[in-house]
Amino acid sequence: MTTHPTRTLSEFLVASRYEDIPAEVRHEASRAMLNALGCAIGSARHETVEAALAAVTPFAGQPQAGIFGRAERLDALNAALVNGISIHVLDFDDTHQRAVHPSAPVLPALLAYAEWKQTSGRDLLHAFVLGVEAEVRIGLSVFPEHYDIGWHITGTAGVFGAAAATAKLLGLDAQRTAWALGIAATQSSGLREMFGSMCKSLHPGRAAQGGMTAALLAAQGFTSSERAIEAPRGFGNVMSTKFDATVITNGLGEHYELSKNMYKPYACGLVVHAAIDGCIQLRREHDLKPEDIDRVELATSLLVPELTGNRTPQNGLEGKFSVYHAAAVALVHGAAGEAQFSDAVVRDATVIAVRDRVSISAGAGVRKLEAHVNIRLRNGTVLEKHVEHALGTVERPMSDRDLEDKFRSLADGVLSAAEASRVIGLCWRVAELEDAGELARATVPR
Amino acid sequence: MTTHPTRTLSEFLVASRYEDIPAEVRHEASRAMLNALGCAIGSARHETVEAALAAVTPFAGQPQAGIFGRAERLDALNAALVNGISIHVLDFDDTHQRAVHPSAPVLPALLAYAEWKQTSGRDLLHAFVLGVEAEVRIGLSVFPEHYDIGWHITGTAGVFGAAAATAKLLGLDAQRTAWALGIAATQSSGLREMFGSMCKSLHPGRAAQGGMTAALLAAQGFTSSERAIEAPRGFGNVMSTKFDATVITNGLGEHYELSKNMYKPYACGLVVHAAIDGCIQLRREHDLKPEDIDRVELATSLLVPELTGNRTPQNGLEGKFSVYHAAAVALVHGAAGEAQFSDAVVRDATVIAVRDRVSISAGAGVRKLEAHVNIRLRNGTVLEKHVEHALGTVERPMSDRDLEDKFRSLADGVLSAAEASRVIGLCWRVAELEDAGELARATVPR
Repeated sequence: MTTHPTRTLSEFLVASRYEDIPAEVRHEASRAMLNALGCAIGSARHETVEAALAAVTPFAGQPQAGIFGRAERLDALNAALVNGISIHVLDFDDTHQRAVHPSAPVLPALLAYAEWKQTSGRDLLHAFVLGVEAEVRIGLSVFPEHYDIGWHITGTAGVFGAAAATAKLLGLDAQRTAWALGIAATQSSGLREMFGSMCKSLHPGRAAQGGMTAALLAAQGFTSSERAIEAPRGFGNVMSTKFDATVITNGLGEHYELSKNMYKPYACGLVVHAAIDGCIQLRREHDLKPEDIDRVELATSLLVPELTGNRTPQNGLEGKFSVYHAAAVALVHGAAGEAQFSDAVVRDATVIAVRDRVSISAGAGVRKLEAHVNIRLRNGTVLEKHVEHALGTVERPMSDRDLEDKFRSLADGVLSAAEASRVIGLCWRVAELEDAGELARATVPR
Repeated sequence: MTTHPTRTLSEFLVASRYEDIPAEVRHEASRAMLNALGCAIGSARHETVEAALAAVTPFAGQPQAGIFGRAERLDALNAALVNGISIHVLDFDDTHQRAVHPSAPVLPALLAYAEWKQTSGRDLLHAFVLGVEAEVRIGLSVFPEHYDIGWHITGTAGVFGAAAATAKLLGLDAQRTAWALGIAATQSSGLREMFGSMCKSLHPGRAAQGGMTAALLAAQGFTSSERAIEAPRGFGNVMSTKFDATVITNGLGEHYELSKNMYKPYACGLVVHAAIDGCIQLRREHDLKPEDIDRVELATSLLVPELTGNRTPQNGLEGKFSVYHAAAVALVHGAAGEAQFSDAVVRDATVIAVRDRVSISAGAGVRKLEAHVNIRLRNGTVLEKHVEHALGTVERPMSDRDLEDKFRSLADGVLSAAEASRVIGLCWRVAELEDAGELARATVPR
């Protein structure tokens, strides 16, 4: 079974029926869609989205599919590109417990398809669950070595998710599904060097567009390798120093990776969430003021300085890659939403004064989503907080209500309260929709 | 200088003037264009091109640019994709002496741009030379390790060529050119596992489209890393086990890689050309008939069995990856053009009978484009031929007249003789054209 993961996965995707998907996994799909659409709407006017739209609009075809949170309509492939960018650009989208931002590469391809060719909500939800399953399993088959080498796994694995999901909607057979995965494999790309630039969010955008193209090509009989994942010169071996095919095939259909999906309460990388969480809790419990604070010491995992070690961020985007800034806004504002990662807040003197008092000690003894926060006040008091699991983790998930609140906060200023409520309602009952494209169109402000 | 290859290369691209390009390099650009357009016209109705066109046409925008050899017009980005495929699909396009098929990723982006926004022939030619310079140097900076790992360097390096060339036409400054190279780097992809499937020619198609998109995004201020080639998590280090930045920067502008371009007289991979050449020469010199032949022994480089070791090809495409078939048609037909790699010829009993008499001994003592051919006849005679440099190499180049003949042979059945002559004439005087788009339009049959 494990010697043919491309074929085994393809056969699973073809054989899967909607009824096979457990109710809690279907509900998680609704949660993921709500979260992803909120992120896209919240960044609908982001400069990254504006630049991408300006670049591709002269080449766009028939207005088949909408840009979330905006009035423009592009052909489905270009819409998938721009929506993949906008879901991810705030770094506020979902994250699988181990690796990959699952929704950004998959949902844009599916909703673009659904707007182009009428698709039921059931079929959309089913294809979404399967797309996430494919991308996460393929991603984990090479994780963490693949990521450690320097690949941005949301791009490199995401393209498989978009291909698998679109192949399911197209009703491809197992051979053509395998070709779609092969055409995806040979477009797999995205370097971690791009973190901190607009290209980071280009990765899920290109993955959505490339994966969708892969399935459309396969549907036309465009051939590929049928062993693209496992061959000696296939994805696993070329793009990683470790490849474990059993991760792709073991227990397929018995459990679903979407069950391990996490949502961010804070608008930055997950690795700093525990530190933010601890700072917010201490601020609340002790009514801390910026001027009370003498020193902030954070004990974190090794990933924190590696990914977010910028001591002197100059703008909002850089602020997302600075644990120092993140801890500072948590202490000064008691929050770490999009507003706290604006250029103005990053340059605010009060925030900078606290930021300069933050230090980190990172060690292998602290897990990725864990942190110890130690604050010494000017009066000599020492406050401590151990955050074992940050809010938003699988162990301590955001509630449906939390996700609704997050959506409303992101949609504020783009959609009216009634429009936001309508999107929320459509997400919860997506499986009942005759025309899933309604979900995309509901994100457009009147 | 070598510590900032992305910046150094970008500054070179910006500073380069048309007058800097030596006359012989400009002439080589004309030769490369003529050869590439012939390949595209010859494959205008290839099933790979048909499948790609069918897949993307529903999404195509305004008819900005033509498909070589066909009447259809698509938006410039989709035209670049399809034309990148059609130039390469016959495996008959140009090859740099050391690595990379230079024209297929670069020319489609440039001609699509030239049809979209009127561009002079001088500017097109200049950008073409620079695009080839960028892709070959970046490719060679990681060669051969990058290729040995399993990357199809025409895709992975080609995307830089299309980006650099389009950036030049757009007149980007050094920073935006560096971003364009960065956006290219993070789309760099293409696995050798795809050899033998339609995906092999998808690689230059995607490279043309992705590189062009990279430059268009950079023009809109879409940011990227400015060290995408050399950074620890950039192209060179992530995608290869060896990276030598000096290959990119040394002697920039002092010599041009296009001078080392090669053109194929035979419609298959270069590594078997010397063997074909030897077989054709022996057939001609001794008037050989298939029934005369008892055994054919080929002494080749190690690459020959590795890349073309298929003993029993089943169709034309597989025949291109079979040195056994290639030697057989050379001996039976005295030729190895497109016709000799048709499904029918691969299944021809006479060809198969000779094919089954071919054996290879490969060794490190034989260079890549060298071969020893040893034929034992049924009457006991032994014939030998040592081909030191196959026809089409830099040492033994095809003449301009050879290239014209090859073009006419490829265009036969698509263009009239007069139409073919017109394209040939336009290629030789491309630098004088006010509107370089004329070259693309001339490939369309009346």
